[in-house]
Amino acid sequence: MELGFIGLGNMGVAMVKSLLRAGHQVVVWNRTREKAEALRSEGARVADAVADACRGDAVITMLADDGAVQHVACGAHGILDALAPGKTIHVSMSTISPRLVRNLAERHAERNQLFLSAPVLGRPAAAEHAQLTVLAAGPDELIEAMKPAFFALGPRVLTVGPEPESANVVKVACNAMIASVIEALGETLALVTKAGVEPRTYVDLLLATVLSSPMLRPYGQAALAGSFEPGFAIPLALKDMELALGVGRERSVPLPTISLIRDHMIEAIATGNGGLDWSALALVAQREAGLATQH
Amino acid sequence: MELGFIGLGNMGVAMVKSLLRAGHQVVVWNRTREKAEALRSEGARVADAVADACRGDAVITMLADDGAVQHVACGAHGILDALAPGKTIHVSMSTISPRLVRNLAERHAERNQLFLSAPVLGRPAAAEHAQLTVLAAGPDELIEAMKPAFFALGPRVLTVGPEPESANVVKVACNAMIASVIEALGETLALVTKAGVEPRTYVDLLLATVLSSPMLRPYGQAALAGSFEPGFAIPLALKDMELALGVGRERSVPLPTISLIRDHMIEAIATGNGGLDWSALALVAQREAGLATQH
Amino acid sequence: MELGFIGLGNMGVAMVKSLLRAGHQVVVWNRTREKAEALRSEGARVADAVADACRGDAVITMLADDGAVQHVACGAHGILDALAPGKTIHVSMSTISPRLVRNLAERHAERNQLFLSAPVLGRPAAAEHAQLTVLAAGPDELIEAMKPAFFALGPRVLTVGPEPESANVVKVACNAMIASVIEALGETLALVTKAGVEPRTYVDLLLATVLSSPMLRPYGQAALAGSFEPGFAIPLALKDMELALGVGRERSVPLPTISLIRDHMIEAIATGNGGLDWSALALVAQREAGLATQH
Amino acid sequence: MELGFIGLGNMGVAMVKSLLRAGHQVVVWNRTREKAEALRSEGARVADAVADACRGDAVITMLADDGAVQHVACGAHGILDALAPGKTIHVSMSTISPRLVRNLAERHAERNQLFLSAPVLGRPAAAEHAQLTVLAAGPDELIEAMKPAFFALGPRVLTVGPEPESANVVKVACNAMIASVIEALGETLALVTKAGVEPRTYVDLLLATVLSSPMLRPYGQAALAGSFEPGFAIPLALKDMELALGVGRERSVPLPTISLIRDHMIEAIATGNGGLDWSALALVAQREAGLATQH
Repeated sequence: MELGFIGLGNMGVAMVKSLLRAGHQVVVWNRTREKAEALRSEGARVADAVADACRGDAVITMLADDGAVQHVACGAHGILDALAPGKTIHVSMSTISPRLVRNLAERHAERNQLFLSAPVLGRPAAAEHAQLTVLAAGPDELIEAMKPAFFALGPRVLTVGPEPESANVVKVACNAMIASVIEALGETLALVTKAGVEPRTYVDLLLATVLSSPMLRPYGQAALAGSFEPGFAIPLALKDMELALGVGRERSVPLPTISLIRDHMIEAIATGNGGLDWSALALVAQREAGLATQH
Repeated sequence: MELGFIGLGNMGVAMVKSLLRAGHQVVVWNRTREKAEALRSEGARVADAVADACRGDAVITMLADDGAVQHVACGAHGILDALAPGKTIHVSMSTISPRLVRNLAERHAERNQLFLSAPVLGRPAAAEHAQLTVLAAGPDELIEAMKPAFFALGPRVLTVGPEPESANVVKVACNAMIASVIEALGETLALVTKAGVEPRTYVDLLLATVLSSPMLRPYGQAALAGSFEPGFAIPLALKDMELALGVGRERSVPLPTISLIRDHMIEAIATGNGGLDWSALALVAQREAGLATQH
Repeated sequence: MELGFIGLGNMGVAMVKSLLRAGHQVVVWNRTREKAEALRSEGARVADAVADACRGDAVITMLADDGAVQHVACGAHGILDALAPGKTIHVSMSTISPRLVRNLAERHAERNQLFLSAPVLGRPAAAEHAQLTVLAAGPDELIEAMKPAFFALGPRVLTVGPEPESANVVKVACNAMIASVIEALGETLALVTKAGVEPRTYVDLLLATVLSSPMLRPYGQAALAGSFEPGFAIPLALKDMELALGVGRERSVPLPTISLIRDHMIEAIATGNGGLDWSALALVAQREAGLATQH
Repeated sequence: MELGFIGLGNMGVAMVKSLLRAGHQVVVWNRTREKAEALRSEGARVADAVADACRGDAVITMLADDGAVQHVACGAHGILDALAPGKTIHVSMSTISPRLVRNLAERHAERNQLFLSAPVLGRPAAAEHAQLTVLAAGPDELIEAMKPAFFALGPRVLTVGPEPESANVVKVACNAMIASVIEALGETLALVTKAGVEPRTYVDLLLATVLSSPMLRPYGQAALAGSFEPGFAIPLALKDMELALGVGRERSVPLPTISLIRDHMIEAIATGNGGLDWSALALVAQREAGLATQH
């Protein structure tokens, strides 16, 4: 496919590489041009302006937060201005608020422009190895049209529904679920440790029970090793918890577990561990149990 | 093996059946004798007194709570009085407090009696189909000696360590983990539902992600169907949360997620849902989100 | 003093009346002009534009939220455009985020304009009877200059410090404290009620202990009577909790009690009680304890 | 009055002194006799056995916990055995579980013995200066009969109701309320501090608002000074939170704020601050906000 790609953070760069490797043509744009230039050697073309990335089959946005998306999509010379009606699809893959996605959907619709939301599950390493899970929402025919690109990013493309924002709701709900498991693992690991159980024994046992899941092994490993290299740094995870709480606020759904995890992420940042992976919630549990001090 | 078995609740009865089916000889005793008599037709012998169940290779206790175990083990004409030193092993399989297990271990040791703790993971249905997971802790040679009986109960016998109480610590930690997943599932399901996502789509998506675990399908199913037949009733689950919190208190480990779940289980009971399965935590989340009233 | 007054909600109208009654001249402006016209009979003049309210000794803004203040202060033909440097003081009395106040302070300073923040404690009834507490922050000489107006609103003018935003921090902290007392009162009232204690006896006892405070009587009364006429409606209180949590987020301070109260306020809204006073947190506690259903 | 007094901890000793000073005759008994002997010089007589303290108008018990009361009241040669029916009143002033008080009430009633529950609010210093608040519950005529003794302990004798246990319910509810204020004060103090507000300014402001209460000044002072001399040590306060949660469990009342405070008290103990006053909850809030490490 002929694709524009806007937003070259860690995730964006890895996704572009996977798209190129699968044979797609990609025109990249980034606020700081250096990151775009660096992809030339991989086969990407570099756009001089946002509009130059909006002329193919689709333009994908993979930006840090609501503010960045609003700027690039709705600002002067942005995507809303550039997109030809009924031709190029805007595929928002950023983890942003369902509210902003709804707003984008409405504004694209007013202009007869095509729009999909398709956030992904997975870290940069998964993106580079084409192992992401794509959560797609919007008109079926657009999802169908994008599948060649989506399957270049990972083997699982899951359709959430016709409302684009619903993909973002599910995305933040999934991340809230993962965070809950990390949190409970951290608390119970502190518990068994102080009660004299070998921590590794506990994690191995969990992996032999009905709780066993693909995420449990790496996160259990991280907690045992005390090694919290940022795959998904706490401030980004905190952003996702706040997106979930924001949906809860808008729809009137109390989310006490997520509130508690949000507080623990803030505690991690306050105590100097904000640069670590979200698996470092285990450190907060350890600190509160008197097991560890500053990492 | 020649086994005594004390405690014929739902779990106990199912376990005895599995032991008999595997060819073991079982002498059963129960406070209300009818439940013991009912097992005659399955091949069990009925003991007239606790001491009559304490003469084989091992006597297994599978009782409701600390009080019941204390009564049967430490009371007059109890197991401590009856057990021949160095011969019959007392295998405590009840989900009781690590503190009581420690106490039992000490008192058996004073009398040169053999003692193991081996609580199980799994519901009565799993017990009947020999699908329990046994968490065994105590001297290795005793665990080895009990394996013919343990493997009659399920395919997984996991060794926790030399201190009997550590099996109970791990047991309540596992249940706390399971409860956390149920709770987070309930909260996020209320969230996506009120945000317009088809609940079944959400659960199916979870099953396609790194969160997928053997427990997720049945609990997701229960929440979707709104059918909370008690496999593990809320008051029993609440007892386990309080055992976990009790260990946390004794060892000075704050467990905020478990405290929150305890409060929600109390809320379930207070609002008339105490007779349901612990998966009915989803109902509490729904109620708090204004989605449901009394079940 | 010659005052402009922008923002004629319940609080604003009551404050203007108190200012007029104390002999000040007040030029009012409101987005919907009717509310301004209604104050003519009390002696107010009506401004045709924001700029017309910015020409006296000071212009007071008393608006609903960050968005409204941003619009009126920073938008086209707004206060920033209209204010003569070094002459008219912009006194922000709205309960808005410390972050926005900091931003306003910077932008006014760039233009050599005078700026104070002075949010108030108290409800509309207190405003009308000149019983507000003013929390003022900014340059001492400006606070001094505004005292004739402030004392027309209430007998207590408390100086928080030289940074305008600090008044807003203290304001939301105070409201968080009040909410905590309301919450704890609700929970313990449900407790003693279900334990068979006469609720009135409990509240009377509290008033005879070290806990007795001016707020305890009316909120205790409301909870006993089950009468939650909105003096400060739950959605407004929720806004303040979110302002507190927002400061906590920006400054990395976990606020678990406030998170919990936020969830309960959302629960109140979700269960149909969003139109009530924040003292209706007691209803949430009752519902969760199975004591009450829909109000 | 002729009084027996059993239990000579810090509170008990101070109470006996106040009773003697008011002219009452007091026969004291304590498990470790030295503490009893030390009161001879103040005018007390020393009992050789529990029964010797049970012969006057009343015998007061002021013991550490349920276990101690059960031992002294229900054990061999205990109060239940010693008390003459219809003559000497057993006045339980210990902070114990309502459940135990109910049990004592029933057992005394079976023996036609007289029984009151009358826990107190206040610290040892208040006890010594006759400044306690007595919460009395039981038959009116017995409360009336005890008033000379009660008023020797403090100026406020508050009647809770006819069921003795209701006094204990109210006692733990009051302490839960006080703990909530301490907790909220700690959290908001960490908030305003990190947001650049002078902590003393914040506390002074609180004292000028509707939140002002007799408890706020000393606890605010302690938090500002970082001086947490144990008046009421955290493990004792934690015991009271657990009594409140125990009533909540028995009566099916979720108490999320108290659960949260319980976790923070455990965190205080886990991080080495278990020897401090419960006002040291402020230290937990500071630690979680990255403001302080070990005290």
